[in-house]
Amino acid sequence: MAGVQVLAQLRAALPAGAVVTDPAAVLARSSDAAGAAAPGVALALVLPSTTAQVSAIARIAHAHGVPLVPQGALSGLAGGANAVDGAILVSLEAMAAIVRIDAVDQVAVVQPGVVTDDLARAVAERGLFYPPDPASSSRCTIGGNIATNAGGMRCVKYGVTRDFVRSLEVVLADGQIVRTRPPTVKAVGGLDLTGLVVGSEGTLAIVTEATLALLPAPGPTQGVCATFATVAGALAAANAIMAGPHRPSTLELLDSVVLAAISAYDPTSTLPAGAHALLLVLTDAREGGSADVAAYARAAHERAALTVDLATEPDRLDALLAARRAFQPAMQALRGASLNEDVAVPRSRLPELIERLAALAAGSGVTVGTGGHIGDGNVHPVIAFDPADPAQVAAAQRVHRQILDLAAELGGTVTGEHGIGVEKLVALDAELGPTVRDLQRRIKQAFDPTAILNPGKKL
Amino acid sequence: MAGVQVLAQLRAALPAGAVVTDPAAVLARSSDAAGAAAPGVALALVLPSTTAQVSAIARIAHAHGVPLVPQGALSGLAGGANAVDGAILVSLEAMAAIVRIDAVDQVAVVQPGVVTDDLARAVAERGLFYPPDPASSSRCTIGGNIATNAGGMRCVKYGVTRDFVRSLEVVLADGQIVRTRPPTVKAVGGLDLTGLVVGSEGTLAIVTEATLALLPAPGPTQGVCATFATVAGALAAANAIMAGPHRPSTLELLDSVVLAAISAYDPTSTLPAGAHALLLVLTDAREGGSADVAAYARAAHERAALTVDLATEPDRLDALLAARRAFQPAMQALRGASLNEDVAVPRSRLPELIERLAALAAGSGVTVGTGGHIGDGNVHPVIAFDPADPAQVAAAQRVHRQILDLAAELGGTVTGEHGIGVEKLVALDAELGPTVRDLQRRIKQAFDPTAILNPGKKL
Repeated sequence: MAGVQVLAQLRAALPAGAVVTDPAAVLARSSDAAGAAAPGVALALVLPSTTAQVSAIARIAHAHGVPLVPQGALSGLAGGANAVDGAILVSLEAMAAIVRIDAVDQVAVVQPGVVTDDLARAVAERGLFYPPDPASSSRCTIGGNIATNAGGMRCVKYGVTRDFVRSLEVVLADGQIVRTRPPTVKAVGGLDLTGLVVGSEGTLAIVTEATLALLPAPGPTQGVCATFATVAGALAAANAIMAGPHRPSTLELLDSVVLAAISAYDPTSTLPAGAHALLLVLTDAREGGSADVAAYARAAHERAALTVDLATEPDRLDALLAARRAFQPAMQALRGASLNEDVAVPRSRLPELIERLAALAAGSGVTVGTGGHIGDGNVHPVIAFDPADPAQVAAAQRVHRQILDLAAELGGTVTGEHGIGVEKLVALDAELGPTVRDLQRRIKQAFDPTAILNPGKKL
Repeated sequence: MAGVQVLAQLRAALPAGAVVTDPAAVLARSSDAAGAAAPGVALALVLPSTTAQVSAIARIAHAHGVPLVPQGALSGLAGGANAVDGAILVSLEAMAAIVRIDAVDQVAVVQPGVVTDDLARAVAERGLFYPPDPASSSRCTIGGNIATNAGGMRCVKYGVTRDFVRSLEVVLADGQIVRTRPPTVKAVGGLDLTGLVVGSEGTLAIVTEATLALLPAPGPTQGVCATFATVAGALAAANAIMAGPHRPSTLELLDSVVLAAISAYDPTSTLPAGAHALLLVLTDAREGGSADVAAYARAAHERAALTVDLATEPDRLDALLAARRAFQPAMQALRGASLNEDVAVPRSRLPELIERLAALAAGSGVTVGTGGHIGDGNVHPVIAFDPADPAQVAAAQRVHRQILDLAAELGGTVTGEHGIGVEKLVALDAELGPTVRDLQRRIKQAFDPTAILNPGKKL
């Protein structure tokens, strides 16, 4: 049996303990945080600690036609790191070194298993700044961030993970090790393989080292927390802020369903009560931060804000950010389970999106709370449902599909930052069309002709 | 003969006058501004005015296996838009509409033939800002900027053309029309086809419409012009500025050869005399601009600047920028011809690059002047030579190759913003290696299986 041979070769190529076949241990690493689709049954879990070992794994898998599923912290929300039948799960978590932080070139060279917050702290100690901040930053890894082109609250000012990936060392499907690009700020000698690998969810290559761009440390974070009688009012204030010169570093919305869910989930949270929408608008400007805050407050007042609180004290700010981070757990706690959507539209279409989400939710049998990165037009409608109630499970699935369709109808995307994984494959024809999907598959084939890299995902 | 059929079909598909076969007119559109390599002899020049016409051209070319060479303003510096034998030159200059400027979504939708400065002016009138500013911005087109991933002086703060291309409408080699991506700020549903097409120099697809990201208008430009006794001193000041919180919007170097050439080319230029290096450091901050300027002046003084002039008055600033823009024409005027290099290295390697460039030039028989975007580690060594002197022509070619090799040796790139075209194909093995080159060719094949799009370029 091929599986036996593959395992023997893996054990010969890797250190003792780096090949795990215990079914419980493998099962524990078979699903990411999306949780909806049932994963496949993997052959083994491997824990390489060097690029050479990743290369050896790929060569073995390539020779035998065995699928490889690259994995980080399993915090993904689309099933992108889920096991597929017969696959080798390749955990990059043991490759967690920060190789180098260079203050002159303003880059960090890191292995894929570095936890995002650990990198952020390490560069901050050098007076530098790594902006991407996905909600799971305390546990997710840079490799996973690269695989999904992860976003976060600071994207509205700084951009997404791709904007900070300067060069990658990757292992190709046949085990060859290449660098995608010189580590210079600008380079147009080659096609943009770096940007292509970012966001490819492990379907094109396995990232074994990344050179990441850094910025000088920002100023102190401060801002405004404003509430509104309608979501439309909050959106109008947000548009006014984005149209002005005071570009916020964070511009987040929480609707009334989410606000109620957070207050129930954490009674100590000090969110303003009774509002239909909350805006959190922050700046981290080195200079002119007070002018930014004043501009945000003015924009809120001019759009009939119910309350406008200055969030300039660190304690108040931490409390607000903690409440914002409780968004998804609070929605999940509401009925016991949740589906986390991740749609994005041009900002001008947000009012229509929000209105039609409310219409979808009304009478559906499930609860939909919406919040997220409205400065980027990227919101997370979260569908809360009781997993023990078949009617609610079915309703959640129905609303899930309706939300995907709605995003496409409004000229948007079904995923701004979470990825396609397995959960959103159904939506790709509507979003990309058959010609682009076919082109993507041919690009996949150029990288991975025998289709062993994370098959069944993304494309 | 196939050519006759192709021309007949093109004439049937396009409006009267849009198919040009007059040899002089075709020859006039057969070379870009690189000027070194002799172009091929094209079959015809076509001037489509709609995406449907571009699609029809591609279908005809695809059916007959005729090469297509997409062209903008022919201001490129690598031969990327040069004619190849038997090709149809596809000028996109007639597709020059600014379709839409949207202040809420902060995007501009444009056709490829729009001149960069025309777009910049149009969005400025709406209080918005399109940052990419290649030196040829008064005549180059957005389509050409996208093809080369053009840079410019403001990249050090804002990034390159790719960072502002949100979505593209492209015509594929077989004539199919697709959009690469929804026009949302964030979208991870597909592979990054947008970034892949940007910088591909017309080898993957023909861009027929671009949705470009805009920013709110910046503040007034102001800064510092400082001179130094050594290039090393100027580089040290530049590194100090980049390491600090006062990120400049422009950080340019001119060495003594360039300074002398500019003073000879334009005696009215008011550059400080007698210096070995000049730094131009500008800010366009809305708030804190004065603090930025003070920080730049301080950094220059601390690195023993000979002179530090504040450039805060518009007239003085315009004069300095005009002198900087005279860099390449002045070097060309020095001996009658020039080769414009475009190397980039990590900023920490700049001192070694500059030192070894000087060593290469010494006794070579040609003159090398270096300047450019040192905030990005991207400099333009310009080789000035007498085109009537065979010894100098040979020396220029020799130094050209040595500079390409040097960039690769220092872990850099042979092209930060100009592209590969035909002039730098020789350097690709050293920079990318055979595995990446092969991977690029397979990606090309995924887009263009019959290899009709700009063959012989880039890859």
